[in-house]
Amino acid sequence: MKDKLWKEVIDAQERLQGVTHVTPVFESSSLDQIAKSSVTLKAENLQLSGSFKFRGAYNALSALSDEERKRGVITHSSGNHGQALALAAKLLGQRAFVIMPENAPTVKREAVAGYGAMVVPCAPPTQSSREEKTREIIEQTSAAFIDSHDDLHVIAGQATAAVELIEQSGPFDILLAPVGGGGLIAGTAIAASHLLDGARVIGCEPAGADDAYKSLATGERILDFTPRTIADGLRTPLGKLNFEIMQQLVDAIVLVSEEEIVRAMRFVWERMKLIIEPSSAVAVAPLLSGAIGGNGERIGVILSGGNVDLDRFFAPIEKTSAGKD
Amino acid sequence: MKDKLWKEVIDAQERLQGVTHVTPVFESSSLDQIAKSSVTLKAENLQLSGSFKFRGAYNALSALSDEERKRGVITHSSGNHGQALALAAKLLGQRAFVIMPENAPTVKREAVAGYGAMVVPCAPPTQSSREEKTREIIEQTSAAFIDSHDDLHVIAGQATAAVELIEQSGPFDILLAPVGGGGLIAGTAIAASHLLDGARVIGCEPAGADDAYKSLATGERILDFTPRTIADGLRTPLGKLNFEIMQQLVDAIVLVSEEEIVRAMRFVWERMKLIIEPSSAVAVAPLLSGAIGGNGERIGVILSGGNVDLDRFFAPIEKTSAGKD
Repeated sequence: MKDKLWKEVIDAQERLQGVTHVTPVFESSSLDQIAKSSVTLKAENLQLSGSFKFRGAYNALSALSDEERKRGVITHSSGNHGQALALAAKLLGQRAFVIMPENAPTVKREAVAGYGAMVVPCAPPTQSSREEKTREIIEQTSAAFIDSHDDLHVIAGQATAAVELIEQSGPFDILLAPVGGGGLIAGTAIAASHLLDGARVIGCEPAGADDAYKSLATGERILDFTPRTIADGLRTPLGKLNFEIMQQLVDAIVLVSEEEIVRAMRFVWERMKLIIEPSSAVAVAPLLSGAIGGNGERIGVILSGGNVDLDRFFAPIEKTSAGKD
Repeated sequence: MKDKLWKEVIDAQERLQGVTHVTPVFESSSLDQIAKSSVTLKAENLQLSGSFKFRGAYNALSALSDEERKRGVITHSSGNHGQALALAAKLLGQRAFVIMPENAPTVKREAVAGYGAMVVPCAPPTQSSREEKTREIIEQTSAAFIDSHDDLHVIAGQATAAVELIEQSGPFDILLAPVGGGGLIAGTAIAASHLLDGARVIGCEPAGADDAYKSLATGERILDFTPRTIADGLRTPLGKLNFEIMQQLVDAIVLVSEEEIVRAMRFVWERMKLIIEPSSAVAVAPLLSGAIGGNGERIGVILSGGNVDLDRFFAPIEKTSAGKD
């Protein structure tokens, strides 16, 4: 399996070449001191569309047949995958449909629509209603469904982030990535299994959405759970293919509390001056808490994205600066 | 004069070599589109101490005689210069005193104290009270006073940011930097006068603190004005030496409104995922408003710093995540 997966990553790299940003890596001496390690952070918050998701979406869309391309693509997502798919479709000249709950924040709907995709609202905001709406649009348009994570091309695309990180700053003893649906961590594990010798790949998950932790512990994929976490990108249940890859290639899942997530997010904003979203902070938190590190390990971390609603910060000063206060 | 100034910049470069970060540069295709130009932003928000001020402070401290070093250094600043001086003194093993208004935000006092400097509160928070307190400490300690901007070594240190920017991404048709006391813009102009052919150096200033604009227009340095701007780093009156250099080497000052500052700050946070402080946004604002650019110019911008109080954003989620809500 490993060789077949790696072949997909090579193909993804070729498709993404010259399209995706080779995002920079950052170090922080204060983080190194706290974690007693040598940490390199890969800034996928600076990737096109604001998250690593663009890699997988663009790869999946590029892999479609000419016939499929003409019919367009569809997904359901109120988050980064929707934005990534919309931008990838725009760049490839394909039409895209993104099903979003009708109560999704305006800022998210506008981001997707701003890339030229058609936003299709669905109500109520349940799994079954969005699946029904998706089927309805597919019947009308024959658009190809692109899952946010449970898709080989998506996983292979996400793997290119870790490949780049290893090329930029490897080798590593440990790689950390957040776990939601499992696209990024599965891709990271594939890259590490091929490019690193004896490195540990550790998924980082909110304790309030610990389905990957429990699924790997019990050997059975947990689908029914109610996520309670600020890390909105990590509320998705683990995908089937993702779980299979993780069972073989991921060494451990570490859980972090909500308090640790917020503290890690603030640390990166305040000390490193990088805007990361809560999901990204989940992979930094174990370094600050001491759960990982402590022995001078070379640790690579993927900062998954930076799409945060900044209204709470800016609304008051926008009002004042416009003389409305 | 130009050659003498340039000699100081060369000396500064040597002193800073291996100490300061060679901060990365960033581009943004959406900024380029809006500004109809090719813009490169130098991320001095990622500099040690969180702003370019570290360059000048470290250079000034390194240039002291052995005797002066023993006696320590002193400044008055509630902002980035205080932090920069404190960190530079720590790295050079010198003791430092930073006079701060007794009502300065706790976060700023802690930042300075965190670098090991002695924070000396003064009351009331007036110019004369802080000068008196400074004299008092100098009498007691013979510490050397290091001005935040009106100092040749400080200016030469700040110049190294533009030198680096030109080396990384030059040549440029226009260089933009914010103007407060005039340390950064004077240094930028020295660098441009030596390294760029025919480039325009433009200082960016809040309309609510337009002393540099008026001083250059009238030929007389304005000292008496009441700044009204969110850009807390730019409320300082122009220094004497800074004004002299600017009269010779700065091509223009462009004024920006408070609304433009906030919009530019949000743009950089949201689109570029970089935390910059309002003072930095002042040099981005003219590109968004159309005041500068429009003809495919190659434009270099110095993002001066990223020290922002993030409490408004984090306090609510810290409370929730700690289960206190």
